[in-house]
Amino acid sequence: MKRVFNFSAGPAAIPTEVLKEAQEELLDFHGAGISIMESSHRAKIYDDVHNETISLIKELYKVPDNFSVLFLQGGASLQFAMVPMNLYKGGVAQYADTGSWSTKAIKEAKIQNINYEVVASSKESGYDRIPENINFDDSADFAYITSNNTIYGTQYKEFPKTKAPLVIDASSDIFSTPVDWSRIGIMFAGAQKNAGPSGLTIVIIREDLIERVKESVPTMLRYKTHAEKNSLFNTPPTFGIYLLNLIMKWLKSKGGIEGIKELNEKKAKILYDVIDNSNGFYVGHAQKDSRSLMNVTFNIKDKDADLEAKLVELAKQNDMIGLKGHRSIGGLRASIYNAMPIEGVEKLAKLMQDFAKENQ
Amino acid sequence: MKRVFNFSAGPAAIPTEVLKEAQEELLDFHGAGISIMESSHRAKIYDDVHNETISLIKELYKVPDNFSVLFLQGGASLQFAMVPMNLYKGGVAQYADTGSWSTKAIKEAKIQNINYEVVASSKESGYDRIPENINFDDSADFAYITSNNTIYGTQYKEFPKTKAPLVIDASSDIFSTPVDWSRIGIMFAGAQKNAGPSGLTIVIIREDLIERVKESVPTMLRYKTHAEKNSLFNTPPTFGIYLLNLIMKWLKSKGGIEGIKELNEKKAKILYDVIDNSNGFYVGHAQKDSRSLMNVTFNIKDKDADLEAKLVELAKQNDMIGLKGHRSIGGLRASIYNAMPIEGVEKLAKLMQDFAKENQ
Repeated sequence: MKRVFNFSAGPAAIPTEVLKEAQEELLDFHGAGISIMESSHRAKIYDDVHNETISLIKELYKVPDNFSVLFLQGGASLQFAMVPMNLYKGGVAQYADTGSWSTKAIKEAKIQNINYEVVASSKESGYDRIPENINFDDSADFAYITSNNTIYGTQYKEFPKTKAPLVIDASSDIFSTPVDWSRIGIMFAGAQKNAGPSGLTIVIIREDLIERVKESVPTMLRYKTHAEKNSLFNTPPTFGIYLLNLIMKWLKSKGGIEGIKELNEKKAKILYDVIDNSNGFYVGHAQKDSRSLMNVTFNIKDKDADLEAKLVELAKQNDMIGLKGHRSIGGLRASIYNAMPIEGVEKLAKLMQDFAKENQ
Repeated sequence: MKRVFNFSAGPAAIPTEVLKEAQEELLDFHGAGISIMESSHRAKIYDDVHNETISLIKELYKVPDNFSVLFLQGGASLQFAMVPMNLYKGGVAQYADTGSWSTKAIKEAKIQNINYEVVASSKESGYDRIPENINFDDSADFAYITSNNTIYGTQYKEFPKTKAPLVIDASSDIFSTPVDWSRIGIMFAGAQKNAGPSGLTIVIIREDLIERVKESVPTMLRYKTHAEKNSLFNTPPTFGIYLLNLIMKWLKSKGGIEGIKELNEKKAKILYDVIDNSNGFYVGHAQKDSRSLMNVTFNIKDKDADLEAKLVELAKQNDMIGLKGHRSIGGLRASIYNAMPIEGVEKLAKLMQDFAKENQ
């Protein structure tokens, strides 16, 4: 069996230990004689997995008691629509625009014809930073940010403070670092970057916000529907939730979210150091104070597309894949989510150093 | 490794051969060194699986060229809302009510405050049949049916003929029998009964209907969004689609949908014969001409709950699980989707016969 280092932005690497465990019990879950994905979502064997996963999330992420953990579908893209459907109440919705994903979220506010404002944006500088001093109105119906910007490699170091319910698209950094729940109204994430396979959306919502929805919203699009039924209103993506369960246990074995944060900082530092010490051979896209711990984005000097392609290819030959940057900024992108082992990062750093020396 | 016969209504049995193949390549897909679920949905290795799955569906199900195959999320429950959002144009929507699932679909029409009519219903007789001579108006914006009713064990033998776009919730009998596409506008199905794990929704839509949607509908809830991007507008549930791919290949090896239909008829006949030849010990819920080939529902005479529980327990001891009937009609339900081998049905038939003899 061959395993490469997978730097893809999402769907992304899953810990090898987790996949091995899933493999072992794929046809016979704990002696039941069926795969967990063949179990009724109303059966005890699945129910135990479902509830344990919620408990593990609450425990490891230190989610306060007045929040509910929901398992939905449709990815962050469906959340872009569900957030205003559930939270808008005739006032104003405020957004910070830090890249493609927040832009898409804003587009859905426009489609729903609600009153919205973009209060901060880093568009003019090519989304190379998180805007400073974002000021949301305390009276806004909700305030919206994208905590980590996969494409541009930027990340909030601290969430803005506001009395308005802060909605956070954490698709690319959920479970990567402890968060201050006192600042959060809703956090949501597609699982496929940091928490499992695609097809599962995790929503962590402050309970008072669940009640705000109007009865004209379709049943499946109300957080309330899912909260009242413990995410079992209809069949949830059971196999994805099972993998999330294994990933949370793996995370626990790594020292929980505090432990993984330390590791993530170490991993990111290795790559940013290579960039910063390359005498300008590598040029990071993000401003230093906005750098993401999850997605390290960089170009080669003068945006040399030939050299960039050469490095991507060389990495591939050395069993490191998924390094091509997003088309909007080109260059390279190393996505180093929780599941990327430090060995993968060290191997990439070495290759980058050697490549810089040879091509300086 | 233990494998039991799984008669669950959904999520349901997946062919053992399919699970074995998925198991073998779970950590290393075709030598790529990653799991298929770790692949970017924009990478070639996933793209090949995605497109091959669509081709296999079109080939095996004989889907005409003017239909698109979409991979969505949210299950049939989200389709209940998406159908009127996409198809209603100010006229009337017509529904046939054949049980809980169509009732839920009707509820979403009501929530959206559209003009709708229930033109046929078998509610008064406990949903024990498909209503005869359903007449949809040719001018209706759409006409809606549930082809197989999991809870009550009834199934359409032929789809109603109408010039209105016929929308079919085929969640529990998709791919089980050839269908007449000339009568169909949209067919949709949650995958978890007959086509894979939960978290994947298959939508097969006539292309002219894709264009009907208004721009006020959120992006993710428009069929058009997904059709234009070949179901890659956002990250689809890639692992579910991969399993569907393996299931379609398995289906091909079984003689395709024509072959599986023959097998399904044989399997259902075995169980219905046991019921009909039991001298009234077993009482089928569905009227004979409405009987489902997928879900065989029955009680023991006088709805003897003790005997019914005893039989469910005895089956379990003999490695046959998931036989408890839905709470709304009690009794037993044997779900015998494509993946249930005839050996499982024969084993259950034998147990039922012996049990009837002992307890007559």
